Amino acid sequence: MASKFKPIGDRVLVLPSKEGEVKKGGIIIPDTAKEKPQEGKIVALGTGKTDDNGKKVAFEVRIGDRVVFAKYGGTEIKFDGEEHVILREEDILGVLNN
Amino acid sequence: MASKFKPIGDRVLVLPSKEGEVKKGGIIIPDTAKEKPQEGKIVALGTGKTDDNGKKVAFEVRIGDRVVFAKYGGTEIKFDGEEHVILREEDILGVLNN
Amino acid sequence: MASKFKPIGDRVLVLPSKEGEVKKGGIIIPDTAKEKPQEGKIVALGTGKTDDNGKKVAFEVRIGDRVVFAKYGGTEIKFDGEEHVILREEDILGVLNN
Amino acid sequence: MASKFKPIGDRVLVLPSKEGEVKKGGIIIPDTAKEKPQEGKIVALGTGKTDDNGKKVAFEVRIGDRVVFAKYGGTEIKFDGEEHVILREEDILGVLNN
Amino acid sequence: MASKFKPIGDRVLVLPSKEGEVKKGGIIIPDTAKEKPQEGKIVALGTGKTDDNGKKVAFEVRIGDRVVFAKYGGTEIKFDGEEHVILREEDILGVLNN
Amino acid sequence: MASKFKPIGDRVLVLPSKEGEVKKGGIIIPDTAKEKPQEGKIVALGTGKTDDNGKKVAFEVRIGDRVVFAKYGGTEIKFDGEEHVILREEDILGVLNN
Amino acid sequence: MASKFKPIGDRVLVLPSKEGEVKKGGIIIPDTAKEKPQEGKIVALGTGKTDDNGKKVAFEVRIGDRVVFAKYGGTEIKFDGEEHVILREEDILGVLNN
Repeated sequence: MASKFKPIGDRVLVLPSKEGEVKKGGIIIPDTAKEKPQEGKIVALGTGKTDDNGKKVAFEVRIGDRVVFAKYGGTEIKFDGEEHVILREEDILGVLNN
Repeated sequence: MASKFKPIGDRVLVLPSKEGEVKKGGIIIPDTAKEKPQEGKIVALGTGKTDDNGKKVAFEVRIGDRVVFAKYGGTEIKFDGEEHVILREEDILGVLNN
Repeated sequence: MASKFKPIGDRVLVLPSKEGEVKKGGIIIPDTAKEKPQEGKIVALGTGKTDDNGKKVAFEVRIGDRVVFAKYGGTEIKFDGEEHVILREEDILGVLNN
Repeated sequence: MASKFKPIGDRVLVLPSKEGEVKKGGIIIPDTAKEKPQEGKIVALGTGKTDDNGKKVAFEVRIGDRVVFAKYGGTEIKFDGEEHVILREEDILGVLNN
Repeated sequence: MASKFKPIGDRVLVLPSKEGEVKKGGIIIPDTAKEKPQEGKIVALGTGKTDDNGKKVAFEVRIGDRVVFAKYGGTEIKFDGEEHVILREEDILGVLNN
Repeated sequence: MASKFKPIGDRVLVLPSKEGEVKKGGIIIPDTAKEKPQEGKIVALGTGKTDDNGKKVAFEVRIGDRVVFAKYGGTEIKFDGEEHVILREEDILGVLNN
Repeated sequence: MASKFKPIGDRVLVLPSKEGEVKKGGIIIPDTAKEKPQEGKIVALGTGKTDDNGKKVAFEVRIGDRVVFAKYGGTEIKFDGEEHVILREEDILGVLNN
């Protein structure tokens, strides 16, 4: 499904984890958090950001990474019945290691 | 029709998909999305952005690409009875592959 | 008339099309557009923008071009009874080809 | 009088035209203009802007030029009974040629 | 626990000190402070910021450092029952030496 | 007195003229001015601004210069009973010549 | 005490003067000042700012300097019963010489 969509620039496509999956994974986002982070999986990387010297900047994340991201700033979109989020890499806070 | 209009700089001209076409294409934009993305086809590329070293930056999208874009920031315009949108490439979130 | 006025920097002087002329030209601007674009003709180019290396940047538009521009940001001024608009090239969305 | 005051940086000192003079000069500023431009004469140039490489940038305007400027952002000041305006060159929209 | 999470870019993962621990450590944050700083321990460093020349910038802090940070701008997250904060290094005010 | 205080960076220390002195000097600031400029004398220059290449930028003003400045942004401070203003050089509009 | 805390980046740690000490020192901050400056002593310098070329920028102030600073933007913190302020060097207006 993800192969159906190529993000532009420094954007990535993320498949957010479902409520139940997150609890098993071990992170809990407190209700009191100002800007609630969310967990998900990277399903597509963008064409890449271009730096001031015209060179492409490599992504810090890879397809398949389980990530924590700030929902704010993302754009929700549905592919084949699954809700996805288009984000800038900037809005990914970190990667969860198994 | 598109050949009638050459966007300036990093702008592109997009022909938005009609309601029915989008449903067949498989993406659905949730009603709850803060900033609703839209689907459309690139019909003209601009003269190109110039980087800090005075060199033209190539577009990441091509004429004919089916794209998802953030409507916000675009300018609506009608050519030969068809509604179009003039956008900066920056506002294109990604390309849909068939 | 235009020769009476030399814009400074990356500004251009535009003679907006009159209501009737626009309709013949084929573009129609929808009433629902947030930031209504307008049609007009370039009648004077500025002294040019200077880039970070101190070099003048060439204009993408030429005198005589029929352009679509975002009215927002422009300054209205009257020469010899004709209303004109002083704009930055940045506010020109594209050029109409005949 | 103007020789009494040396503007700092990219500022210029302008002597605004009086109501009657402007009408003779041929430009009329419509009442509907959002940010009303004004006509005047350059009476002093600043010490000059310094670019990123530490070099002084030449002014696009010269002493004696009749200019149209955006009043917004300028500072009014009176020398020898005449009202003047201190402006950045950036706020000068263009030069009127006789 | 911290090894479970790799922050992206110039972010760090901080384990905030508990109320009692802070008092023993000797710093007291006045109630009148506009933007209340907090004490904690660095438990993970990010992948690093990339400068304009494409080189990674080294962190000023190290894992294990006891730091004072501005809570504002951080994102709260819970790993294995412990509340953590994801911060940019920029939001760390200083390091406490024993 | 001024020698008691060394401003940091691109700041200068200014001794504002007293009401009566200004009138003799010949400039009058209209009551209608949006951002009222003021007259004063430079009594100390800062340590200097550092440009992008790490070089100190020379001041355009000198100690003893009679200047017109925008009061907005300055910080009032009293040395030996005299009110002074700490300003960035940027806020000095120009120098008055005798 | 100060040796217990190393500020990060271009920050400094300042011990504000007590009411009585300031009056003896000779500066008086008027009650009418918009953004009240304060007097204090530098007790610790940060790790230093890094410029665009990756080089550390030297501080303009030294440990022991008596400084005037804009309280706005600083963060209050207490070490061993003494209230301190963490500031960016940018917020230090100048140094008082004895």
